[in-house]
Amino acid sequence: MRITDIAVTPVAFRDPPLLNSVGVHEPWALRTIVEVHTDEGISGLGETYGDIGHLDRVRGAAPGLVGLDVHDLNGLRARVADALGGVAGSDRHGLTGPLTAESTVDRVFASFEVATWDIRGKALGRPVSDLLGGAVRDTVPYSAYLFYKWAGHPGDEPDAFGEALDPAGIVAQAEALIDAHGFGSIKLKGGVLEPRQEVEAVLALREAFPDHPLRLDPNAAWTPATSLEVAAALDGVVEYLEDPAPGIDGMAEVAAGAPMPLATNMCVIAFEHLAPAVARGAVQVVLSDHHYWGGLSRSKELAAICRTFGIGLSMHSNSHLGISLAAMTHLAAATPNLNYACDTHYPWNAADDVITTPFTFVDGAVRVPTAPGLGVELDRDALARAAEAYRACGLVQRDDTGYMQQHEPSYERKRPRW
Amino acid sequence: MRITDIAVTPVAFRDPPLLNSVGVHEPWALRTIVEVHTDEGISGLGETYGDIGHLDRVRGAAPGLVGLDVHDLNGLRARVADALGGVAGSDRHGLTGPLTAESTVDRVFASFEVATWDIRGKALGRPVSDLLGGAVRDTVPYSAYLFYKWAGHPGDEPDAFGEALDPAGIVAQAEALIDAHGFGSIKLKGGVLEPRQEVEAVLALREAFPDHPLRLDPNAAWTPATSLEVAAALDGVVEYLEDPAPGIDGMAEVAAGAPMPLATNMCVIAFEHLAPAVARGAVQVVLSDHHYWGGLSRSKELAAICRTFGIGLSMHSNSHLGISLAAMTHLAAATPNLNYACDTHYPWNAADDVITTPFTFVDGAVRVPTAPGLGVELDRDALARAAEAYRACGLVQRDDTGYMQQHEPSYERKRPRW
Repeated sequence: MRITDIAVTPVAFRDPPLLNSVGVHEPWALRTIVEVHTDEGISGLGETYGDIGHLDRVRGAAPGLVGLDVHDLNGLRARVADALGGVAGSDRHGLTGPLTAESTVDRVFASFEVATWDIRGKALGRPVSDLLGGAVRDTVPYSAYLFYKWAGHPGDEPDAFGEALDPAGIVAQAEALIDAHGFGSIKLKGGVLEPRQEVEAVLALREAFPDHPLRLDPNAAWTPATSLEVAAALDGVVEYLEDPAPGIDGMAEVAAGAPMPLATNMCVIAFEHLAPAVARGAVQVVLSDHHYWGGLSRSKELAAICRTFGIGLSMHSNSHLGISLAAMTHLAAATPNLNYACDTHYPWNAADDVITTPFTFVDGAVRVPTAPGLGVELDRDALARAAEAYRACGLVQRDDTGYMQQHEPSYERKRPRW
Repeated sequence: MRITDIAVTPVAFRDPPLLNSVGVHEPWALRTIVEVHTDEGISGLGETYGDIGHLDRVRGAAPGLVGLDVHDLNGLRARVADALGGVAGSDRHGLTGPLTAESTVDRVFASFEVATWDIRGKALGRPVSDLLGGAVRDTVPYSAYLFYKWAGHPGDEPDAFGEALDPAGIVAQAEALIDAHGFGSIKLKGGVLEPRQEVEAVLALREAFPDHPLRLDPNAAWTPATSLEVAAALDGVVEYLEDPAPGIDGMAEVAAGAPMPLATNMCVIAFEHLAPAVARGAVQVVLSDHHYWGGLSRSKELAAICRTFGIGLSMHSNSHLGISLAAMTHLAAATPNLNYACDTHYPWNAADDVITTPFTFVDGAVRVPTAPGLGVELDRDALARAAEAYRACGLVQRDDTGYMQQHEPSYERKRPRW
């Protein structure tokens, strides 16, 4: 079953003003939708980042895949590597670590790889989770992903989610998300306010939700010393502390003194980071993400490495739509040692999804699709609208820092900040 | 596609008197042939160990798999684990390290797992290598596997292979195997004679075959001190030294001073051995073997771990028939970082194979089958003969030491011996 054509469509969808350690989300989030067509009339979907550098690499690699068989993951990855020619991408938004040539291949390859699983599942009449070794759970739990946020984008009316800039606002946001979706775990994106204020927010969450596992993620906004103070203050309160300090060295220093596991999607974001992280004991939980770990197959390899080296496994999310959520859910369902609730931004963005039946959360979990392939279908009208929004919005590169500076000119990007 | 029935057939085939560090091969080698049948009329083959303890575990686990889907590797492995109930197998022949409950599950599961790949490949009309990510090579190179050996089994006429008890005999054996099969790499099973004599044999091989990569495997017959002497004597001569000393500690001690990489199929034989081996820098090459690493899927995970931690990957063999060789070849073909010639005993045993078209080596390599599934078919007459040989031979458990002691009563099992 050979690839005949690949359509690459950048899209934009509305995003609330969610704050993080490098600034604030712009009014539009960008993504790229990939459709892989084959000579047997079966097509498959993938979803990946929308930043222009990545989009250009995906567009550049796609033609080289025409003619290859959808089973030939080794061949497809080699073609992607050839097309990229050893160039490393860059992380201009500053929310992941530096990319290497190898991890750039994994990022680009993943967009296509997911589509090949969708195709193979459709051809066989089986859901992707079956092809990944079989679902060990029928539903995949996600966490309520809380953000400090403005009431609305500057100049706009307040959005439906409202303001959250203190512990009471964060607790109210958690209540709203949990009321709507039933989440059983809570993650707070930190790195926005003074660490002491974020600790207070987490303690307020603990009081309001005594039984929900909690997490705090400041995106490496703290020095190791500050991280250790926060860790001491949250001893027994969070199930893990996510990327408190920058780099494997910083994380190792914190890990040596923190009473809870440390998780990361910033210092271990490629296979080449695993050996040094293991050697230093820097992280106890890896937040996997098939979008940059090279797709579903290599994410299963990552899971095997975590299982083998006694590292916990959870799942990371960027702003995304339903094709990504489908892939995340199949992968999580078929990965026995993925034993934390996964992260997802989906509730913030689902209204603009490009699939015919957007996902819903029941008791905080997504039911693993049982239809063939990923089990989702493009809504062509919605895709056209999102593609038009991309053209109209004028954004081609996520820039949380620049957007913040438009409204707070004195804002500086700084890591660690505290 | 659900499993309806599993046939488990122990077989025996003729084996020459090959010497190793624990004794000598008996006249019959034992294996178990597994046939998994499904409700869609497609069946698949597996081949595994024949020792009675393992055979009983395979027989015990098989009924619990009936009704499961052939894609559901997670579910199948869980059922095998349930059937075994946490019991660890034993390694009575002494050529692998101690088994654990987890690695015993992997051994039993692997027999069935390979058959499910065969079934899925047949259902799709694709070779197993395609389902494993695509063949990166059309042929898989194997090494000439040399043994010290007696001329024939005691009481029998000399066999076709002849005696090899000194450097000249080993070189002659290499010449015969390479003339017949074209092997481009050579492995000598050592641990039989004084280390100095085995070094001389390797040096004689180097002289006779100046361009063939060479390996020496004494199966942990040496102390670390002896290993380091041999390593110094073979500096620049062997591509790797295999299991010179027992255990991760022993190997780590040798690795610290040896000029060449150390390979193992004795101290890293399960996922739980990888973390300590990596931490100690004990091994530089893992000899993978899907029969005990839990099948093809988990062997690919092992390959990913080796790639990630900078460990080389080669392939181990026990006495085996063509179903195993087919599985080994598909796996090796689809594993980009399996970059050494694989080991195989096949030339010593191929005459009694139970498949309709036994494999041949061309330029030392096996062509990756392109027919659906494993690409091999049972020869029912040959299987019946081999099953009858099993019943007639009276052996149920490999015992190289006991057989040696029948002929050399003073022989003692000792590790390390030198």
